[in-house]
Amino acid sequence: MDTPVADAVDAERLREDIEANGRFGAVEGEGHGRTVRTGSEANRRARDRLVGRLEAAGCTVAVDSVGNVSGRWTPASADPEAAPVASGSHLDSVPAGGIFDGPLGVYAALEAVRAMREAGVEPARPVEVVSFTEEEGATFADGLLGSSVAVGERTPDEALALTDADGRTLDTALDTVGYRGEGVLDAAGWDAWLELHVEQHTELEAAGVPAGVVGDITGITHCDVEITGEANHAGSTPMAGRSDALAAASELVLAVEDAARDLAVGDAAPDPAAVGTVGSLSVAPNATNVVPGRAEVGIDVRSTTYASMESLVGVVEDTLARVERERGVGTTLRREFDLEPTPMTPRCRDALRAAGERAGIDTLDLHSGAAHDSMYVARVTDAGMLFAPSRDGLSHTPKEWTDWEDCAAATRVLAEALADLAGVDA
Amino acid sequence: MDTPVADAVDAERLREDIEANGRFGAVEGEGHGRTVRTGSEANRRARDRLVGRLEAAGCTVAVDSVGNVSGRWTPASADPEAAPVASGSHLDSVPAGGIFDGPLGVYAALEAVRAMREAGVEPARPVEVVSFTEEEGATFADGLLGSSVAVGERTPDEALALTDADGRTLDTALDTVGYRGEGVLDAAGWDAWLELHVEQHTELEAAGVPAGVVGDITGITHCDVEITGEANHAGSTPMAGRSDALAAASELVLAVEDAARDLAVGDAAPDPAAVGTVGSLSVAPNATNVVPGRAEVGIDVRSTTYASMESLVGVVEDTLARVERERGVGTTLRREFDLEPTPMTPRCRDALRAAGERAGIDTLDLHSGAAHDSMYVARVTDAGMLFAPSRDGLSHTPKEWTDWEDCAAATRVLAEALADLAGVDA
Repeated sequence: MDTPVADAVDAERLREDIEANGRFGAVEGEGHGRTVRTGSEANRRARDRLVGRLEAAGCTVAVDSVGNVSGRWTPASADPEAAPVASGSHLDSVPAGGIFDGPLGVYAALEAVRAMREAGVEPARPVEVVSFTEEEGATFADGLLGSSVAVGERTPDEALALTDADGRTLDTALDTVGYRGEGVLDAAGWDAWLELHVEQHTELEAAGVPAGVVGDITGITHCDVEITGEANHAGSTPMAGRSDALAAASELVLAVEDAARDLAVGDAAPDPAAVGTVGSLSVAPNATNVVPGRAEVGIDVRSTTYASMESLVGVVEDTLARVERERGVGTTLRREFDLEPTPMTPRCRDALRAAGERAGIDTLDLHSGAAHDSMYVARVTDAGMLFAPSRDGLSHTPKEWTDWEDCAAATRVLAEALADLAGVDA
Repeated sequence: MDTPVADAVDAERLREDIEANGRFGAVEGEGHGRTVRTGSEANRRARDRLVGRLEAAGCTVAVDSVGNVSGRWTPASADPEAAPVASGSHLDSVPAGGIFDGPLGVYAALEAVRAMREAGVEPARPVEVVSFTEEEGATFADGLLGSSVAVGERTPDEALALTDADGRTLDTALDTVGYRGEGVLDAAGWDAWLELHVEQHTELEAAGVPAGVVGDITGITHCDVEITGEANHAGSTPMAGRSDALAAASELVLAVEDAARDLAVGDAAPDPAAVGTVGSLSVAPNATNVVPGRAEVGIDVRSTTYASMESLVGVVEDTLARVERERGVGTTLRREFDLEPTPMTPRCRDALRAAGERAGIDTLDLHSGAAHDSMYVARVTDAGMLFAPSRDGLSHTPKEWTDWEDCAAATRVLAEALADLAGVDA
């Protein structure tokens, strides 16, 4: 089959972009780490470079009021008024994160535009390359900051008033680096959206497949639990007279793990996307010789099926009721963060699968256990996600790695699918 | 029966001493809190006041090289060369500790000397009032600092080289407050030792008895455990592929609790002094959305029977072997602190019980679940301990409280017993 767009993807050019971007905020030591916080000097340099590369590729660049960067390519073949097809990801990182998480999706989208131009194809729609502000949420928000504004979940004013740990507003931070623009990037105005991202897990690596088509993005609930017992002398308080907050918390840790395992691999209709994690636990007074009086427990519950999430939260509630009864502790549960699972749009998934077939690149259907900007975008327009393999499933660490040939293969699938959605005859 | 010494104990004078001492390092807020760290200004003032009160009572004061303060009363009736009978406790406190834990034992011993003088009794041995440096271990050591030197467990040089969190040596700290003295207080030279201390538990309060005669002081082992799993993304790591250090630690918490309960109240030969506590637990990276990669666990194991302690440590070892096998985690166990149970000397226990009987004050036999300087003293001479009630069993908090009449009653028992041991005819 003839695949001029996929064939025009330049693996070396993509690699140079990702490596050059990876030098901003680079951290010393093993692996390839970078720290790119919103409003930092590294963030400014990464943004400046992207803008230059977008302009060099013939894109018209816009920066919205929360710093979302977009570069629109409107070829002569396209109706300038037609809803564009958009693709991208983010340039920010967690502290000491990897060089692929985010930048791969931004620069792959740009490479797709360059490939379309060089292949001489004639899209009927404009194509927009997007970099959302602070997907990781390491500085101003819990994550998905720029996309939340682009889909209308947050107003620009709400977002700009957010503060970092030093009390600096997003408004000031963006102004400092020159990316406090105007207006709002309007995701609802896109005909479709595709995001390429690293998998952060091992399914693709295990299967030896370079590209994964995401069916659903997991839903996420965070439960913040506080357990109050009675701090007391570890030597002079007999076992029978205790109200040990850590022992109660330990029951909760094991109950969550047990219930999530049952859901994931249980006999009755297993839900392999179901996970339950007690990731954080803080004990007070936290002295070896004092019976713990208080425990704060942070629980992460996810699944692509909301009923599974509800069932896990139910186990948390039941366990807390039981330890109150049996151990005389007090408990509180706050469920502040609750995102339902997000199915990707069938026509976007089909476009990605078909692109892989045309280009002769294997794809695998999988789900995303991590949150992505595409969760928000899918609320307002058709959306799809593509994964590239992560070595050993690692991410958010300098050890994060995706082989360059896998980056190129996934970018070929992305470019072919974007061309298709933009109205290039396949 | 005629009990001139018990009758001469002045409850008001004792109260004034404890209240005055309690104002040094007093903390604001509810209750009666004080912070008296070794080498602090509060510590200097508390020591100065004690020295003044000892001298006023006719005692010859000595300060040894690690700041242990002793005041010896040598009445005309006594052989100045005879081994003295000693009694005391400590003046330091934990941060925001109570006013009785330590000072009651020091000032009760002084009150006993004053009562003997005023009653005109004729001891055959000198009587020594002692305040050990840093029993609590809040600043320079793990605890029992002054007594460890007085019994030869540590050399003065080893002790003086200990540093606080700011890197200041004990040597400098004592010098600053004027209590870097000469020589070593020699506990082995005492004919017998008695210590009055607050119970830190509820047995006396529950029984309505003002004085408890300690049979054994608990042994203590601290196990420092580190569990290493694999930190990973809480969303994209399936339940089956995890090595969760916190879940493994939770099994350990519950195994220790379960085994200690079984020992304490089990069917076969229950050991009510057996306690096992996981008091501290620290998780890394301790983020809600990351599977825990590491857990540090601090375990406190106690009993008056060393076999019970060994059995609990065995449960820790077995549980670690099991989680290594079943969860693929790595574990390490350090058992750095290990004090065997310390029985009090029968003649000292008998003297305390008999003193209560003579004075018409009920006593109760019990054990100490907390560590005390008397553990060390008992290694080199005959030793006994007496407890006064603690309201609600609380200690190491400004809420710590012992009613003044209970302080006086316990001091009467102590004074009678000291007079007896010092060779006053009962």
